[in-house]
Amino acid sequence: MLSFHLSKSQAHLVWNNHLEPVLHVPNHATIEVEITNASGGQLSPTSQTEDVRQLDFSRVNPVTGPIYIDDAEPGDTLVVDILAVDVDNWGWTANIPGFGLLQDMFPHPHLRISQITDQYAELLPGLRIPVQPFIGTIGVALPQDGDHSLVPPRAQGGNMDIRHLVAGSRLYLPVAVKGALLSLGDTHAAQGDGEVAGTAIETNAMVTIRVHLEKNFSVTLPQLETPPHSQRHGHAWVTTGIGPDLFEAARQATRHMVSLICHRTGLPAIDAYLLTSVAADLKIAEIVDVPNWVVTMHLEKQIIDGGI
Amino acid sequence: MLSFHLSKSQAHLVWNNHLEPVLHVPNHATIEVEITNASGGQLSPTSQTEDVRQLDFSRVNPVTGPIYIDDAEPGDTLVVDILAVDVDNWGWTANIPGFGLLQDMFPHPHLRISQITDQYAELLPGLRIPVQPFIGTIGVALPQDGDHSLVPPRAQGGNMDIRHLVAGSRLYLPVAVKGALLSLGDTHAAQGDGEVAGTAIETNAMVTIRVHLEKNFSVTLPQLETPPHSQRHGHAWVTTGIGPDLFEAARQATRHMVSLICHRTGLPAIDAYLLTSVAADLKIAEIVDVPNWVVTMHLEKQIIDGGI
Repeated sequence: MLSFHLSKSQAHLVWNNHLEPVLHVPNHATIEVEITNASGGQLSPTSQTEDVRQLDFSRVNPVTGPIYIDDAEPGDTLVVDILAVDVDNWGWTANIPGFGLLQDMFPHPHLRISQITDQYAELLPGLRIPVQPFIGTIGVALPQDGDHSLVPPRAQGGNMDIRHLVAGSRLYLPVAVKGALLSLGDTHAAQGDGEVAGTAIETNAMVTIRVHLEKNFSVTLPQLETPPHSQRHGHAWVTTGIGPDLFEAARQATRHMVSLICHRTGLPAIDAYLLTSVAADLKIAEIVDVPNWVVTMHLEKQIIDGGI
Repeated sequence: MLSFHLSKSQAHLVWNNHLEPVLHVPNHATIEVEITNASGGQLSPTSQTEDVRQLDFSRVNPVTGPIYIDDAEPGDTLVVDILAVDVDNWGWTANIPGFGLLQDMFPHPHLRISQITDQYAELLPGLRIPVQPFIGTIGVALPQDGDHSLVPPRAQGGNMDIRHLVAGSRLYLPVAVKGALLSLGDTHAAQGDGEVAGTAIETNAMVTIRVHLEKNFSVTLPQLETPPHSQRHGHAWVTTGIGPDLFEAARQATRHMVSLICHRTGLPAIDAYLLTSVAADLKIAEIVDVPNWVVTMHLEKQIIDGGI
């Protein structure tokens, strides 16, 4: 089996199906991919909140690639096995004005740098989040020509921020152009389902993937197989949002979780909000009891009940 | 500690804060509550699809109660500890025309009767769903006078269908009227987050709860504490829905899971749909990568990979 390597400098900042591949690989290749954190190198372990204000958004969310997979044709499925996601020893989590689910409540920039060990990321002294490293952005080139922002995910994948894309997962992507043109970036040490504040524990990483093509099985949207360790299973605090709009219900559940965390820990609301983003999961409890749906937010109790 | 009992005949079919209580209990009471399944006794272990067509919807979703809790005042929080949910040995799962997330795809009635053991419910021969019994509908009287449908959940709880309300959970409800007027029903042997087809494994049950009042802690929406066994943590199949509307994204993820199940098992689509309703979980993967959100649906692989 052939093995390849890409460095973090072999990156791009928009989706464009005419980008020159930085690597050509055969079917079944294994590729080690170096990833720069989503700030694109603009934040460091010594960064302060002021640096969030100075972020140049034209440089954020770089993805390493594109990788041309030999024989990939539109209609094929590209199968990506995530073999390893080895994260750096630090990460950042920010509130970025105008971004995130509760942007109206939290209009000011805020930054927390976490130290990361094999077990946990320490968002604040004593506030330890179990580490579950995953790939935030992974996708293939779009069928549409021209430049497309890296921020929204689309049918070809991209910035999906599915926290279950950990080592041991397998991802199925719909190939839209010859060679597929796979790119990936935006690695996270931990995140909740929802990524409500808009950032996770954003970190550099070395990712190892293996790719192969399925010629006789096609998907129109990404699908995954995930291992047990991408799930949480501890005692949880759960808040609810109830109403006819899932987005508003998700905002309610998140607001109430922020209040719950503040009440139980004494943390300032902005840090509680970042905590929900990196550790709490949004689920749709029911979407059928007309006209009101229920969204729940779950936070493992051990994260805050040990005392901070 | 005083212990009380309510039979399934002590039930009602609308929320109305002027209903006569069927029981008065003191703070810290333990209550055993008999629950009729959501058909209100209209379906039995020998029912057929034709019986779904004949359902009298004015009799569905009965709740046992209301229970008047002494000293409960508006603004208090009623805390309900769920001590036991002992379900019957059979349950039903139906597609009801005009109800459910994919009602456009599945316009015809369909019924499956499951045998239920301590471990699993058998939706179809060989298709075994791990049993996680919980209370689908539990709530207190609304502040608004008059009759209100039992179908939609509201700030005082009700038909929330949160599958994490298992034995070992604690529920916090906002008291809106004197005495709280607690009612519960709609017990389920198993369900996925979302309950996408509109029904779970609907079953009779004997539920044991303990209630107490919090005078100095108030909630405006239901909150929960949940035990680890309300979570799943096996290998999973995951489908996605991607777009600016969470409801449509949930529909996409569900449609693709139905296809995946059909592809892997050969089940007819309507049974695959019922399976997603009783065993697959909808999560919000991200709700911040403007303008496209990601909803995922997760199904434990062991449920279908053993062969049906």
